[in-house]
Amino acid sequence: MIADAIIELLNYIGIAAFAVSGALKAGKKGMDLLGFVVLGFSTALAGGIIRDMLLGRLPPVNITSVPYQLTAVLAAVITFAFYDKVDKYRDVVLYPDAIGLGAFAAIGADVALRSGLNPLAVMAMAALTAAGGGVVRDVLAAEIPLVLRREIYATAAALGGALYIALYHALGREVALLGTAVAVTTLRLLSLHFGWELPKARGGG
Amino acid sequence: MIADAIIELLNYIGIAAFAVSGALKAGKKGMDLLGFVVLGFSTALAGGIIRDMLLGRLPPVNITSVPYQLTAVLAAVITFAFYDKVDKYRDVVLYPDAIGLGAFAAIGADVALRSGLNPLAVMAMAALTAAGGGVVRDVLAAEIPLVLRREIYATAAALGGALYIALYHALGREVALLGTAVAVTTLRLLSLHFGWELPKARGGG
Amino acid sequence: MIADAIIELLNYIGIAAFAVSGALKAGKKGMDLLGFVVLGFSTALAGGIIRDMLLGRLPPVNITSVPYQLTAVLAAVITFAFYDKVDKYRDVVLYPDAIGLGAFAAIGADVALRSGLNPLAVMAMAALTAAGGGVVRDVLAAEIPLVLRREIYATAAALGGALYIALYHALGREVALLGTAVAVTTLRLLSLHFGWELPKARGGG
Repeated sequence: MIADAIIELLNYIGIAAFAVSGALKAGKKGMDLLGFVVLGFSTALAGGIIRDMLLGRLPPVNITSVPYQLTAVLAAVITFAFYDKVDKYRDVVLYPDAIGLGAFAAIGADVALRSGLNPLAVMAMAALTAAGGGVVRDVLAAEIPLVLRREIYATAAALGGALYIALYHALGREVALLGTAVAVTTLRLLSLHFGWELPKARGGG
Repeated sequence: MIADAIIELLNYIGIAAFAVSGALKAGKKGMDLLGFVVLGFSTALAGGIIRDMLLGRLPPVNITSVPYQLTAVLAAVITFAFYDKVDKYRDVVLYPDAIGLGAFAAIGADVALRSGLNPLAVMAMAALTAAGGGVVRDVLAAEIPLVLRREIYATAAALGGALYIALYHALGREVALLGTAVAVTTLRLLSLHFGWELPKARGGG
Repeated sequence: MIADAIIELLNYIGIAAFAVSGALKAGKKGMDLLGFVVLGFSTALAGGIIRDMLLGRLPPVNITSVPYQLTAVLAAVITFAFYDKVDKYRDVVLYPDAIGLGAFAAIGADVALRSGLNPLAVMAMAALTAAGGGVVRDVLAAEIPLVLRREIYATAAALGGALYIALYHALGREVALLGTAVAVTTLRLLSLHFGWELPKARGGG
């Protein structure tokens, strides 16, 4: 119960942070108000929508939950209204974004494990729930998705899926949820601070 | 009954117009005959397919309905055959396209409302059904989706979703279907004629 | 039984070949290890995932099957490790790729026909299963999908869907599976060898 309440709170922080990140991309691409709302909505909610579509949980909770949708739309509209100010401090969004990444990875792993998926699929669902929205955002902006090119991001979420499984069997669901969220957020912030990157192939692009 | 028949007619007009619009994009990008068919098919039918996937209506009607598919494929092939002539008059397609936008917005809102979705989700489903095909078309052409950047388009469809709900509860389903289709088409044509656009953010793009 | 075993073998060859093709694209775009894995995974498995989502077979078999996923991930990681060597011989991948195209077209047609879809939808499902992964690969790489522009590729798979229906009703399921796989692979290799292309529109792109 307590873990669920904390995760719900983290979920709203993640939705708001991801919606701001999507809206900032819309601004950078010269989109109008609808572009801000659509990119904010997609970045915040698309990862969970795709996850639920894959698992047959239809309609997806992100389609039916008014509070989630209002949070995303509001964050996008506020970003639009204060775009010239928010754009200056865009690095600030990296902190709630990291919290959102951790929360979404934990929630994605939780849903996938309880749907009976295998460990590799749980890791993929954690990464998809956490990073899928950002991929949709970049595809809509006609860019190569950032997560495929730079930094420890989806990787942190996928590792969080593996950690979730271990914690779930050893210490129960609540510890697994909180531990995964904290670990993924911490890994993401450390990798940002120290500039950790995944290796690139010799001879690659 | 009468409303359904009119909507079905509008549906075919919309499918044909959207398929032509997709095929014109394929021609502009130097695609071959398959590209014309795939982009025509996607632009005409993808919005409804994604809507049905989200609502668990599987397989989607646009996958199982031969008449809908033949209409889209035929319109794309005809556009291919007469491409050098059709391309000169591409602005003509804006009129049936606006009718299709209105029809698809009304149908999308109708499906969503009767699936028990909340008002915000009904608006999103109206916009998705009406504009989703165009987004898929532009993503396949490696472009930023036009609807995110210009003009009153998906916005008109989303507003149509709100209008549908009001009309449905006040005057019944048939009035809601026809009223929404006419209103969205009218709003789209007026915005084209007067050059209405959504506001852009200060400091954006 | 025998046909199923052969198709399963062809399926693994196809998954491996498509994963290599996705990983090579990741290398060309300068992506990191995660990019190799995600593009390899998507190219090999996304076509079947989208097909199963459309048919309501949830969760999709490509999400729940560990052997399929390990095959795709391993092929991508090996491509990463030997990228500078593999990149020199990238034309070699065209042969297993053609085998994968044939196998996936046969499997896609088989699934679609037994789900009760109409012939046009069976052809679309064969093309989607066989070529969908490559479309996702190119969208993630921010490129116009290759299959929409060049050569006999998705077209061969769609024709394979029609052939499958004819063979299925005339000679039974096993002949249909094998005959379709062999015919599509042969058509693809012939079109590569002779440089066959679909016609382009006069005045196009």
